[in-house]
Amino acid sequence: MHTLDIIHAKRLGSAHTEAEIGFLVDGYVAGRIPDYQMSAWLMAVLWRGLTDAETFALTGAMVDSGETLDLSSLPGPCLDKHSTGGVGDKTTLAVVPILASAGVQMPKMSGRGLGHTGGTLDKLEAVGARVSFTVDEILAQVKEVGACICAQTETLVPADRKLYALRDATDTVESLPLIAASILSKKIAGGCPAIVLDVKVGGGAFMKTLSDARALAEMMIAIGKARGRAMAAVLSDMDAPLGCAIGNRLEVREVAALLADTPDADPRLRSLVLTLAGASFLLTGKAATLDTGRAFAQMQIESGAAADKLRQIITAQVGDAALLDAPPNASVVREVRAERGGFVSGIDAEAIGRAAMRLGAGRETKEQTIDPEAGIMLGRVVGDTVAAGDVLAALYTERVGSAEAEASAILSCFTLTDIAPDPCPILLETIGLDT
Amino acid sequence: MHTLDIIHAKRLGSAHTEAEIGFLVDGYVAGRIPDYQMSAWLMAVLWRGLTDAETFALTGAMVDSGETLDLSSLPGPCLDKHSTGGVGDKTTLAVVPILASAGVQMPKMSGRGLGHTGGTLDKLEAVGARVSFTVDEILAQVKEVGACICAQTETLVPADRKLYALRDATDTVESLPLIAASILSKKIAGGCPAIVLDVKVGGGAFMKTLSDARALAEMMIAIGKARGRAMAAVLSDMDAPLGCAIGNRLEVREVAALLADTPDADPRLRSLVLTLAGASFLLTGKAATLDTGRAFAQMQIESGAAADKLRQIITAQVGDAALLDAPPNASVVREVRAERGGFVSGIDAEAIGRAAMRLGAGRETKEQTIDPEAGIMLGRVVGDTVAAGDVLAALYTERVGSAEAEASAILSCFTLTDIAPDPCPILLETIGLDT
Repeated sequence: MHTLDIIHAKRLGSAHTEAEIGFLVDGYVAGRIPDYQMSAWLMAVLWRGLTDAETFALTGAMVDSGETLDLSSLPGPCLDKHSTGGVGDKTTLAVVPILASAGVQMPKMSGRGLGHTGGTLDKLEAVGARVSFTVDEILAQVKEVGACICAQTETLVPADRKLYALRDATDTVESLPLIAASILSKKIAGGCPAIVLDVKVGGGAFMKTLSDARALAEMMIAIGKARGRAMAAVLSDMDAPLGCAIGNRLEVREVAALLADTPDADPRLRSLVLTLAGASFLLTGKAATLDTGRAFAQMQIESGAAADKLRQIITAQVGDAALLDAPPNASVVREVRAERGGFVSGIDAEAIGRAAMRLGAGRETKEQTIDPEAGIMLGRVVGDTVAAGDVLAALYTERVGSAEAEASAILSCFTLTDIAPDPCPILLETIGLDT
Repeated sequence: MHTLDIIHAKRLGSAHTEAEIGFLVDGYVAGRIPDYQMSAWLMAVLWRGLTDAETFALTGAMVDSGETLDLSSLPGPCLDKHSTGGVGDKTTLAVVPILASAGVQMPKMSGRGLGHTGGTLDKLEAVGARVSFTVDEILAQVKEVGACICAQTETLVPADRKLYALRDATDTVESLPLIAASILSKKIAGGCPAIVLDVKVGGGAFMKTLSDARALAEMMIAIGKARGRAMAAVLSDMDAPLGCAIGNRLEVREVAALLADTPDADPRLRSLVLTLAGASFLLTGKAATLDTGRAFAQMQIESGAAADKLRQIITAQVGDAALLDAPPNASVVREVRAERGGFVSGIDAEAIGRAAMRLGAGRETKEQTIDPEAGIMLGRVVGDTVAAGDVLAALYTERVGSAEAEASAILSCFTLTDIAPDPCPILLETIGLDT
């Protein structure tokens, strides 16, 4: 078998065998196949695509490149969740304690934020939690408190780390089968028999259209099912930010408030969290329908069990649970006020995410460090009415010099209209949840 | 300017500016842009193509990557020639002496054979000629004998060497604009104001169809004209081998015989050589029409001037002119005889080229050495009649063990039919030669 023949076949649009894909992935991870051949193949894949069978084989070869988690020692059902990422997306931090408090165990490996999108690990670190765990440590904590939210271990799916870095450097990220194989290889190596996919759609998300998001979700579901996993997906809106907080500690505080059943929690955020938790209960046999699953999740919040579980998880990870409710500690707090009255008919999620990044809440490149206290708190969300002078948002930053410019940027993220906008539902579609 | 943005633009099908292409080529040659980004860009180019303006810019940036030949010190007109390569293609060795004997100077840089195709440098070395020259040595020899046939110098178009090696390793060779830019960058750096393109079409050639060959020729002509060169192309058949000799010293001997005006020289070979020489005379103002150019070329042969010039060139390059007429020195000479009578309606050029390669006349990979004496001499060409038992070909090799198998392979390259085939013209089309 020769790498050049495999590149040639893909360039002409042929499908590879499972053995050919294994040869490619194994050879690349072992260093026998150089970066320049792999990047040519990746670009040919963006051109010609991969069949479902090729995508399954790629996922399998990536899983086989490293260790996999053996969860057989855990007592209850296990579930994993993946979000495709967005602005203000704190659902993992809310869903994990809800599930763990009801006996669904979550060994949950997450990522960091990049560009306008946030990442769960950054949010955990904003309350001082540790996120680097070995496989044994993950299993021990899940046994103890029902969940562990941590970084991908070095030993799982080394092929994905190497391939993703190459794709990032060669503009070969944007391929549905490559994205699906990258995500699912990590989830499958994570060992959970059930996986819920939280797929965002819109301006602040990676998938800009419902049809692209649906295609990605269906591909991921097919891969997971081919590996015997119970799969479901929830497609939700990311044209506007999710919830009111954008920025790491602000988002943790918003989650804590949501789990404390605060009545003024953003209804869109609450709805998505309950749906994702409900879908997880359905998939793990804890509920018979999505609706009863949602009601069960609501009970975990109302009883205080979910909030307690969040504190337990943070504490188990050596974080400071007292920080969950404390306001952020920023040199500059600057309010952004409406210049006119009307209805909020849109908030540009990507632009808000970029503004939060520039305030210190995110990173432009992977090497940058972030300011956990920085960010933006929205005072109004889509559909709200506004009077001139009302606080639309507040920004938190140490970057004194750029606060005015960012305030102006944030103001221009809001679209105010004289007539009420059509309702903007958070839930767009579910896949695999019909009972 | 960022490499990733340039890759991204090409992946989406946008055209680059001249500055972007310069950034890419300069950065790659200087080592600032890594192989893996360049190979991703190359595959995106195979996918999306290059516009004429991009191809001109690429050629220019490649030329600018190294030295260019200054031919202003040479007294007469200068012309360069490029063949796209084939099986039994010895036209350069015949055309260069014809032109040089008539005062058209040829500083001619050539290549080596690979796979089923031969290369002029290998043929020169088969008679002991030296092929590595510095720029000053090339100019000195052209001044002295009117021509120098040698390897590309290290100082000319380093971008092409680096890019071609990467394309070869990443299956990104087969792109018309990349091929055209690669060829023309070397010809333009070679400094000649007039360039004749010898474009082969068919099974034994790189271009399998007339339309592909025409597209390549037109693209090369456009590039050359954009750089102020006088350009013409001759498209010729390469379904069957060119002439009767395939193998390095066999081919040199066939050229010597042709220039000696031997009446039994293959008429297809003679016709193509006269046409290429005639086109060259037309382009350099030595003839008013292609026909008078061909007649002038024939005169150079009949007078013995061309044969003398070949000897002078070989001698100037320290080769042994006595070897021009000597039979090859091979341990095994094996005749291949017809098993039935009929007409030769086809000889598979690629298969004959591969058989010659396996006999030692060519190289499968660039690192292999070749046997200058090995090869195949055809006893019959397309259109000939054959009786059972007639010699269709003879093979020459040191590889005693494989001679029988190759004899059988060569036999199966011949298609014998009961009815005479349609005539198979060698000349398919000319471009830029209308007067």
